[in-house]
Amino acid sequence: MAPPFLKSVEEYEKLVDSVDTFLLDCDGVLYHGKQVVEGVRTVLNMLRKKGKKIIFVTNNATKSRRKLKETFDQLGLNASIDECFGSAYASAVYISEVLNFPKDKKVYVFGEEGLEEELDQCGIAHCGGSDPVDREFKAPIDFTVFKADDSIGAVLCGFDSWINYQKLAKAMTYLRNPECKLILTNTDPTFPTHGDVFPGSGSLSIPIVNASKRKPLVIGKPNKMMMDAILAHHMFDPSRALMVGDNLATDIAFGRNSKIRTLLVMGGVTKYEQVFGENPNEVVPDLVMNSFGDLAVLADASEQ
Amino acid sequence: MAPPFLKSVEEYEKLVDSVDTFLLDCDGVLYHGKQVVEGVRTVLNMLRKKGKKIIFVTNNATKSRRKLKETFDQLGLNASIDECFGSAYASAVYISEVLNFPKDKKVYVFGEEGLEEELDQCGIAHCGGSDPVDREFKAPIDFTVFKADDSIGAVLCGFDSWINYQKLAKAMTYLRNPECKLILTNTDPTFPTHGDVFPGSGSLSIPIVNASKRKPLVIGKPNKMMMDAILAHHMFDPSRALMVGDNLATDIAFGRNSKIRTLLVMGGVTKYEQVFGENPNEVVPDLVMNSFGDLAVLADASEQ
Repeated sequence: MAPPFLKSVEEYEKLVDSVDTFLLDCDGVLYHGKQVVEGVRTVLNMLRKKGKKIIFVTNNATKSRRKLKETFDQLGLNASIDECFGSAYASAVYISEVLNFPKDKKVYVFGEEGLEEELDQCGIAHCGGSDPVDREFKAPIDFTVFKADDSIGAVLCGFDSWINYQKLAKAMTYLRNPECKLILTNTDPTFPTHGDVFPGSGSLSIPIVNASKRKPLVIGKPNKMMMDAILAHHMFDPSRALMVGDNLATDIAFGRNSKIRTLLVMGGVTKYEQVFGENPNEVVPDLVMNSFGDLAVLADASEQ
Repeated sequence: MAPPFLKSVEEYEKLVDSVDTFLLDCDGVLYHGKQVVEGVRTVLNMLRKKGKKIIFVTNNATKSRRKLKETFDQLGLNASIDECFGSAYASAVYISEVLNFPKDKKVYVFGEEGLEEELDQCGIAHCGGSDPVDREFKAPIDFTVFKADDSIGAVLCGFDSWINYQKLAKAMTYLRNPECKLILTNTDPTFPTHGDVFPGSGSLSIPIVNASKRKPLVIGKPNKMMMDAILAHHMFDPSRALMVGDNLATDIAFGRNSKIRTLLVMGGVTKYEQVFGENPNEVVPDLVMNSFGDLAVLADASEQ
């Protein structure tokens, strides 16, 4: 059955009253690229004033929590580091706390500085990543440089703008050791930017999955590992929490997998037909509204 | 039921007598890297002397037929260009003859010079490929350079040692046009070299498939398109042909899909257990032997 499409002030009021904790996807909900969605600043101020807890939850794997906060600050959406959860941070927490990563092992990073920063924060040794030896690789390929290395305990893959054959071949070489784990920050096939979608983390790491024939461990939305990282930092009543997102496969599925109510906002990557068409997507949100910024009608004049 | 494992001179003789046309996979059957398999030169000389037709069939997508012939010549395995069928050539033939590629359209190449050379041979306009603009891309990514281009009628993906984000993003940009086709030379996840396997064509193009959500057209083994390209050049009786290979998923499946008898040789990528173990692979060859070079026992002293 199609979910309710909230449109009236009364429906908005009822929604906000029923929620203590807002888990917010970022790109597509709060902003598109560098453009903040109309009304969103007002909504965030209003929610904070009402004492609501706000947590930003993004699969972005290139930014550390520190960088996410900077992005929010630059957009005039004030956030504390504790409110920011990216898949880079969640991956580092998972490796450190759940895997109890051995102190004598390193993580080979297929990813950027943000991922390295979070590993540093969690005290996990790493290599690859922004190392110029890998970034500045030029073909032709010298296969003799790819050596097994038992000190690599995991290959961690996020978004890597510097994707090249050497990075892929090194990852594969290390994964020949069955003890070496394959961990992906997320499997998003694309990400939206400049009004179009481009290859995302999941599409950049899929060569490693395909060539190694490994079943990777995936941390980001829609997986519960991401919620475990959030719950390690924030206590809240799941029955009074709401996951807000624009993506059925990541945000809404994440809410459902974590048994938290979900609100889909339009204007992002999901098309109206995917929810209300004749053959809707199998992932159905609990609620739909046009834009998260529309809640601004509930704000006092002083909060606008 | 497990296939017969040929071991005796009598079995070898019976096999050779029953075959007029030998379709031979290359790496893993004739040579390993730069090392010719023992006995193979003798076997090829003997088969030619007996009037057998020999066709080399490889998914290698970086080499034109001209380059394949050069490789064979350097290894002392004399071949004519007409005997060489690589997936680069088969792809160009398919685009030119089957797709009737429009004269005013170009192919965007995710691949190397060999693929470009075969497109040139077939008179197909192309861009990308070895163009330094794409090869020398350096992050950070400038998303504004990715522009739709309706003159691109197909994206053709092979093995590209220069894989980078710009190549992937350009391919994806062109594939937003539903008229633009996605063609893969092959989907081999890995290829063997230096005694190990490394990411192959199929693992390098999978980001484009994953991000574009397209169902690609795949030319190389095990697909029938490859056989169509061979049959456009060579007449032979399929009931007296034999596909010889070391890979169940490509070579042996190719023979089966083309309704041609198959011979698996060990010593390549297939493990004994995959054929004779308790849970054998679903692709079963008609015959197995240890090495194609073992047929050298049939040669006269003058052919050794």
